[in-house]
Amino acid sequence: MPDTERVVPHFRDQLATLKERLLVMGGLAEERVRAIMEALVEREVDLVDRVQVGDEPINQLHIEIDDRCFKLVALYQPMATDLRAIVAAVKINTDLERVGDLAVNIAEAVRRYVQHPPVKKLIDIPRMAEIAQRMLREALDAFVRRDVDLAQHVLNQDDELDALKTQVFRELLTFMLQDPSTIEPALDLILISRHLERIGDHATNIAEDVIFMVSARDVRHHSPSPSEPD
Amino acid sequence: MPDTERVVPHFRDQLATLKERLLVMGGLAEERVRAIMEALVEREVDLVDRVQVGDEPINQLHIEIDDRCFKLVALYQPMATDLRAIVAAVKINTDLERVGDLAVNIAEAVRRYVQHPPVKKLIDIPRMAEIAQRMLREALDAFVRRDVDLAQHVLNQDDELDALKTQVFRELLTFMLQDPSTIEPALDLILISRHLERIGDHATNIAEDVIFMVSARDVRHHSPSPSEPD
Repeated sequence: MPDTERVVPHFRDQLATLKERLLVMGGLAEERVRAIMEALVEREVDLVDRVQVGDEPINQLHIEIDDRCFKLVALYQPMATDLRAIVAAVKINTDLERVGDLAVNIAEAVRRYVQHPPVKKLIDIPRMAEIAQRMLREALDAFVRRDVDLAQHVLNQDDELDALKTQVFRELLTFMLQDPSTIEPALDLILISRHLERIGDHATNIAEDVIFMVSARDVRHHSPSPSEPD
Repeated sequence: MPDTERVVPHFRDQLATLKERLLVMGGLAEERVRAIMEALVEREVDLVDRVQVGDEPINQLHIEIDDRCFKLVALYQPMATDLRAIVAAVKINTDLERVGDLAVNIAEAVRRYVQHPPVKKLIDIPRMAEIAQRMLREALDAFVRRDVDLAQHVLNQDDELDALKTQVFRELLTFMLQDPSTIEPALDLILISRHLERIGDHATNIAEDVIFMVSARDVRHHSPSPSEPD
C-alpha cells in the first residue's frame, strides 16, 4: 500500500481531474441533445448526420473515466466519502454514455421524421428536451458541488417531464386516429419523446447517486432506512 | 488496513455470497419478464397487477447488493481481479434493477393492450422475450463462471433481437395504416417490443462487463486498445 502522506495530495488532484472529465462528458452529452433538437425543429439533415456519427468523443471519455475510477481505487484504496464519490463517478459515467446513445436513437427517428410533412408545430418536445438538458446539467453540478438540495431539485423536475410525455402521446394519438397519413411521423415523435424521458431518467439516476454519495442515504427506492457503510 | 491473512478467507466467502445474491436478483428479473409475457399472451389482468406491484424484492436486493459491493471494497481493499469483479457487480446490479423497472413498463402497456381486441396472434414478441430472458441468464452465468465465450455468445444474440424488433415494427405499422382502430393497441405492442429490446441491451451490458472483468479488455465501444489497469 502506498504511503498515505505522500500520495494523498496526488489523489486529490486525480479526483479533481476525474470530476472535470465527467463535466466535459456531461457537456458533450448535453450538446448532442441540443443539436439533435435543433436538427428536428429546423429539419436540418446535415445536422442529423453529424449527431448520428458523433458519438465517438463520448465513447472515448466513457472508457477513459472508467479507467480513471478503477485506477484511483486500485492505487489509493480510498475510504468512506472518497470511495463513495468514485463509485458514484462510475455510475454517472454509465448514465452519460447512455445519454450519448439516446442522442443517436433520437437522430434515427429525426431522420425518418423529416422525410414526411410536419405533423404539427413542435412545442412540447423541445420543451421536454430543455428540461432534460437542464436536469442533466444540474445533476452534474450537484455532483461536483456535493449539493443535495440541487440534486433533490433535479428529482422534482422528473414529474414535469413525465406529464409532458403523456401529453405528447395523447395529442399525437389524436392526430393518428384522425389522419392515418400522420401515423408514421407521429410514431417517430412518440419515440423521440420517450428517448427524452429516458434522458431525464439518467439525470434522475445521477441526482440519486449524489444524494447517496453525500448523505449515504439511499433514496432510490424511497427506502426509509439510512445505510451508512463508513 | 485489516490483516490480509486473517481476512482473505472471509473476503472469499463474501464475494461468493455477492455473486449468489446477483444470481437471485437475475432470477427474479427473468421471472418478471416471463410472467408479464404470460399475462400478455393469456390476457390475464390479475397477473398484470402482480407484475406491476411486484418490484419491491428486486429494489431491496438492489440496495443490499450495492451495499455489499461498497463494504467489500471499503473493508478489504481488493486489488486487480477482485476489484474488477466488484466494479462489475455494481454495474450488473444497476442493469438488473432496470430490467425490473422495464417489466413494470411492459405491464403498463399490457394493461392498456388487453382493453382492446387483439391486433394479431403474438409470435415475434414472445420470441423477443425468450431471447432477452436467455441473454440475461447466460450473461449472469458468464459472470459467475468468468466465461468470456459465453459472454461473447450473449453479444451475438443482440442482432437477432434487433431484427425482430424491426420486423414487429414494420408489421404493426401495416396494421395501423390499414385499420386505424388498431392504432392504440399496436402502439402498445411497439412499446413492448422496445422494452424487450432494452432488456436485451442490459444483458449486453452485463456481457461486456464480464469480458472487461476477465480480460481487462474494453469491448464496449469496439476499442482496439486493451487497457490493463493491474
